[in-house]
Amino acid sequence: MAPKTIFITGANRGIGLGLVKELLKVSGVETIVAGARNIDGAKELQSVAKSDSRVHLLAVDVANDESIANSVNSVAGLVGERGLNLLINNAGVIEPYGTSSTPNRATVLKCIDVNAVSALLVSQHFLPLLQKAAAKEDGDTLSADRAAIVNIGSDCASQALNLRGSGPGNSLLAYKMSKVAMVSFSRSMAADFKNLNIPVLITNIHPGWVQTDMGGSNAEISVDESVTKIVASIGKLNASHHAGLFNRELETMPF
Amino acid sequence: MAPKTIFITGANRGIGLGLVKELLKVSGVETIVAGARNIDGAKELQSVAKSDSRVHLLAVDVANDESIANSVNSVAGLVGERGLNLLINNAGVIEPYGTSSTPNRATVLKCIDVNAVSALLVSQHFLPLLQKAAAKEDGDTLSADRAAIVNIGSDCASQALNLRGSGPGNSLLAYKMSKVAMVSFSRSMAADFKNLNIPVLITNIHPGWVQTDMGGSNAEISVDESVTKIVASIGKLNASHHAGLFNRELETMPF
Repeated sequence: MAPKTIFITGANRGIGLGLVKELLKVSGVETIVAGARNIDGAKELQSVAKSDSRVHLLAVDVANDESIANSVNSVAGLVGERGLNLLINNAGVIEPYGTSSTPNRATVLKCIDVNAVSALLVSQHFLPLLQKAAAKEDGDTLSADRAAIVNIGSDCASQALNLRGSGPGNSLLAYKMSKVAMVSFSRSMAADFKNLNIPVLITNIHPGWVQTDMGGSNAEISVDESVTKIVASIGKLNASHHAGLFNRELETMPF
Repeated sequence: MAPKTIFITGANRGIGLGLVKELLKVSGVETIVAGARNIDGAKELQSVAKSDSRVHLLAVDVANDESIANSVNSVAGLVGERGLNLLINNAGVIEPYGTSSTPNRATVLKCIDVNAVSALLVSQHFLPLLQKAAAKEDGDTLSADRAAIVNIGSDCASQALNLRGSGPGNSLLAYKMSKVAMVSFSRSMAADFKNLNIPVLITNIHPGWVQTDMGGSNAEISVDESVTKIVASIGKLNASHHAGLFNRELETMPF
């Protein structure tokens, strides 16, 4: 089995694009809605969509509420009665910031808004579609085949691992704030889902330090190495992963 | 010994006001600058200032960059060559929000902006004044007598303790995001201070669930019970507390 219907944000490049391509290899996947702010500029994604009719492109800006609301309607139309099995909150930015940066509120807020608050709002907006898919099964089983929210997290979400400060180029202070906030809302939501008997799984997966525009060319692993592991891990998600923080091989990471 | 000069935000009521009163009992404290958004409405704080000339009132809105910058100039004038020994980032809000709330980006962002981003910006703006105080001593000793930033944190900053979801009244999801982000920037800053040889301590203290306007009348402890412990703990801060999360009795809390 596999998630039949998938919506992924930030699919125009990097890990998002890699996830689209890797998920197409999974038997049973029927519909992938690939969201990106600028679809016109996403040439490789367009080419993937042309060669596989399961991929649908959708212009969505996760930092814009109206855009999110419109995307729910579009995805609902594409997935129909199946509902949405898997939401991947992948869209994100690094806004370079550090202790020694000139104080700049807008920069810090933008990073947190896009990476954490937007992922929260997308999750809330898409919850009815996820619940629709979850309702196809009885019981309280949790899996990405049934209904799941996967946040593309980061080792920057770990306070225990936050020992090197703002990091290379005085750049990661705000990004770390955003990624811990992402884990926080996922844990609040996971507990609420239990209390509300909503059988939707939510978890956070750290992709590793990946050779993307964001990760830079010095990064440790290729997009392929990262997304192969992430997609395999998504297939293994169960109740033990609810509200957690994991690396791409589903090993627990410390908070 | 004690911090001679102290600046505390959100001093108009609750824990902030309690901290001002409790710090006045500490022998050696010379100057307390009590910041509040609305000084005119802070009647009890005004009365405290009238009865003790060590207390100076300062209108400051931590969510406003110009106001922070002005407050640095005012505090610099009041503390003079001593510099600033202790900054207490106490100002904060709860913006009720939960998984089942109608999605509202502005509410979530406001909570994070006031509680985490503003505390970060205040810390950055006041760092030169803290370094000035720290420079009165040689060596790398860390203490609140020398120079420290104390964030009034929360058990909501702990992912390990975040097991009950959005909490009473579906209210704490955004607040939790803000308080984990506060710990995150403090850990980034602490590591940067080490790398930059800046002997300023930064830490996070959870005051407990306190009977204030924010905590409500059902809360577990009085303001007095909380601030007595917090002030005693501030006096004990050392390098082992750098970048940590502690309860009011300085017991380590899990991330």
